[in-house]
Amino acid sequence: MSNNPIGIFDSGIGGTSIFKEIHALLPNENCIYLADSKNAPYGNLSEEEIVLLSVKNTEFLINKGCKIIVVACNTATTNAIDYLRQNYDIPFIGIEPAIKPAALNTQTKAIGILATKGTLSSQLFHKTTDLYSKDIKIIEQVGEGIVPLIETGQIDSKEMQSYLDIYLEPMLKQNIDYLVLGCTHYPYLIPMLTKMLPKHVKIIDSGRAVAKQTQTVLIALGLLNDSGNQPIIQLFSNGDITVLNSILDYNFEGSYLDF
Amino acid sequence: MSNNPIGIFDSGIGGTSIFKEIHALLPNENCIYLADSKNAPYGNLSEEEIVLLSVKNTEFLINKGCKIIVVACNTATTNAIDYLRQNYDIPFIGIEPAIKPAALNTQTKAIGILATKGTLSSQLFHKTTDLYSKDIKIIEQVGEGIVPLIETGQIDSKEMQSYLDIYLEPMLKQNIDYLVLGCTHYPYLIPMLTKMLPKHVKIIDSGRAVAKQTQTVLIALGLLNDSGNQPIIQLFSNGDITVLNSILDYNFEGSYLDF
Repeated sequence: MSNNPIGIFDSGIGGTSIFKEIHALLPNENCIYLADSKNAPYGNLSEEEIVLLSVKNTEFLINKGCKIIVVACNTATTNAIDYLRQNYDIPFIGIEPAIKPAALNTQTKAIGILATKGTLSSQLFHKTTDLYSKDIKIIEQVGEGIVPLIETGQIDSKEMQSYLDIYLEPMLKQNIDYLVLGCTHYPYLIPMLTKMLPKHVKIIDSGRAVAKQTQTVLIALGLLNDSGNQPIIQLFSNGDITVLNSILDYNFEGSYLDF
Repeated sequence: MSNNPIGIFDSGIGGTSIFKEIHALLPNENCIYLADSKNAPYGNLSEEEIVLLSVKNTEFLINKGCKIIVVACNTATTNAIDYLRQNYDIPFIGIEPAIKPAALNTQTKAIGILATKGTLSSQLFHKTTDLYSKDIKIIEQVGEGIVPLIETGQIDSKEMQSYLDIYLEPMLKQNIDYLVLGCTHYPYLIPMLTKMLPKHVKIIDSGRAVAKQTQTVLIALGLLNDSGNQPIIQLFSNGDITVLNSILDYNFEGSYLDF
């Protein structure tokens, strides 16, 4: 039993899609969400830069007393989570594209994956796809330009529509029946994607699986918060919080301007 | 990364069904299996007795350097795991009857559960069934006498057949389509149960889910063994090891006679 908060960080607001799933599954838990918006998107940074930023985010959250850290960013997971697990004692939950369920269930033997450059080029991603890509076409697409639009609140914009038209075309040509969202920002595109994709194409993101993993680890360590108190949700950002507040229903507490 | 072993204990040989799933999912991991056969079955003991035995098993495994402990016994999980998590720093994985997937997927709105008295009468069990028992009939049955027969190698016996005839009858009358095995000994009955049950009745045990949870926790803590070495599997028992050796394919190492 522990009242200490769950720490969640992302290169901006994308990881709030993960925070929402965690809060829905574990409504008693205190949470601290850290948005490193100033350095978003992580997708185009080098591995060294991503590790350095992930370390700063981790130390901020550990100093706030977090009992577990969710790296709610695919790019930070693939590039930095091994380093974090080797250097800090607390548990880390990471985000990986949900390739496995898509590969196991595809009928058309073709699945699409939309992710950042940093995720698609990583070793971890290739290890996973190699495992499941026998007899299956995996159409990879870098979602260049999408994250900055989401970060600035331009989700339902003409520019976004143009990007998605271009990125989905090769996938639809190959007759995919699963689209895997490999970046925590992308669940905010689901309403638009649902309109654009044929009905038989299913969209998969990792949010619920990550929330379940967080729960499993907290239970195993006896660290669930069963106080029954109203949870305290804190958000910290080093960028403009207008979009963050418009996406979440919580009052913003604190600020963070060290980077 | 850690080469330390995964510790697994049960009131005898039942938890070997869990060990097999863990070894299949995590073939690089060293494992220590502790069979407290002398005190089997736990199902009829008091909560205090079960906690005391679970503490002894836990301290044995911690002294052997285990990095995580799997309480591969439903009765010990329901009665002792909260105590263990509060008093020891390492993670504990427990076993709960897989009521949730059965309740979510039943078509006949009736599921059967076969478990020990200690599991069925526990608070944890009632909390879980209350969650899922709306509009669903849950037919509970204490598997009195089954564990001692398995412990003595009489799995495919006339006496076992007679027990199962009696225990399954009320479930079949209620037209169950899922049978949940709520004791880690019972997966050894699956061949016999499959012959006795109508084809549309699915049998669910918790082995694979427990192995997956163990993996999730080890990954989160950076404790997976990725040395690539041949794993060392050690078995310890305080009872007759003839049946244990006939069920497993590993050579028995060590012994344990403290209880």
